[in-house]
Amino acid sequence: MKGGNKMKDRAVIILSGGMDSTTLLYDIINRGYDVKAVGFNYGQRHKRELECASATCKKLGIEYKVLDLNVLNQVAPSALTREDWKVPEGHYEDDNMKQTVVPNRNMVLLSLATSYAISVDAKKLFYGAHSGDHAIYPDCRKEFVDKMAEVIKICDWKEVELEAPYWNIDKGDIAIRGKELGVDYSLTHTCYNGLEVACGKCGACQERLEAFKKAGVEDPVKYE
Amino acid sequence: MKGGNKMKDRAVIILSGGMDSTTLLYDIINRGYDVKAVGFNYGQRHKRELECASATCKKLGIEYKVLDLNVLNQVAPSALTREDWKVPEGHYEDDNMKQTVVPNRNMVLLSLATSYAISVDAKKLFYGAHSGDHAIYPDCRKEFVDKMAEVIKICDWKEVELEAPYWNIDKGDIAIRGKELGVDYSLTHTCYNGLEVACGKCGACQERLEAFKKAGVEDPVKYE
Repeated sequence: MKGGNKMKDRAVIILSGGMDSTTLLYDIINRGYDVKAVGFNYGQRHKRELECASATCKKLGIEYKVLDLNVLNQVAPSALTREDWKVPEGHYEDDNMKQTVVPNRNMVLLSLATSYAISVDAKKLFYGAHSGDHAIYPDCRKEFVDKMAEVIKICDWKEVELEAPYWNIDKGDIAIRGKELGVDYSLTHTCYNGLEVACGKCGACQERLEAFKKAGVEDPVKYE
Repeated sequence: MKGGNKMKDRAVIILSGGMDSTTLLYDIINRGYDVKAVGFNYGQRHKRELECASATCKKLGIEYKVLDLNVLNQVAPSALTREDWKVPEGHYEDDNMKQTVVPNRNMVLLSLATSYAISVDAKKLFYGAHSGDHAIYPDCRKEFVDKMAEVIKICDWKEVELEAPYWNIDKGDIAIRGKELGVDYSLTHTCYNGLEVACGKCGACQERLEAFKKAGVEDPVKYE
């Protein structure tokens, strides 16, 4: 029905409030989806991320559902959720960053986001994994995302399609895409130390700063 | 090292306290694994299951970890977790039993059990899905279990193998296996109405009673 009131397909996005998923949110709104966002609160240090995600959704008129996932701490305490552990400084690719991983975290998040997607009749589930994540996180690899997509497709009578459109681009490319889309990066948070003012030293901050440099734009968040 | 003190391989089992997973627990102890059990508390009516699982583990000297999963209620309330919903009477294969499904519940449980398995260095994850579950639960099908096994294998640098040894036998065969293994079925719970004394009417009770009949043994739990 050309020019008619075609119903938009619904999509769910996992929105952390970091720059990758926030850019993806703008991207899929731009692609014409009726979007609902879902986030997870698992006592992460960077709770500021969730506040940013909430502010972005408010700005864009998107529903944001935050699911409580403290169970992750019961399963396996990690550097990202335990206040008393020290977050290592340095680059993501360094060996000492490996301790920031909660085992199998992404499968847990994707599983719950899929439950939510099914319950709201979404056809798509979007996920902001990108190529820079691959090196140290086994559950950010293309192979992992592909196999998750296969099992998500058959886990219910309703079919949900998992899409990770940034899997083959890096954070710099994402910043370039965000520039085109007019993403408000002041409402994103990346620093692992979870401060209002980013530390600029941790692996996450370093990677973000490199991304903005590649995109040739200034990062609107404040650094120490 | 024949006759030496060979270290046992560690295995994690998802133990609900129902007869399927309880039989499987006896089975894998019999196969020589060093077993740790994991259960989930998501406000299910049949909390009695968890008490049974705990009693079985105590009896067998197995560690039992219960993870809080109330998040499932936040995602999608269902007949099995909402006190104010009526559990339909009748046979599992009836259409009205479909409302007892939490969408994608099994993927969520398997994901978390995998996180736990990785964190305790288990090589195997056991799961008691059986052929009788297939008809109405899409996430109990062999295809689903196979695809989960594939993605679980690559979700971490440590490899965990998912095994569902009962996928092709029914509850009656499981009861026969349990008889051989000397399973104490008085410490199992099946009724969906969650009472000390089972109702004998719900789909779960009916299926259980048929299973014991097939095995030619008497069910030690009390019925109304």
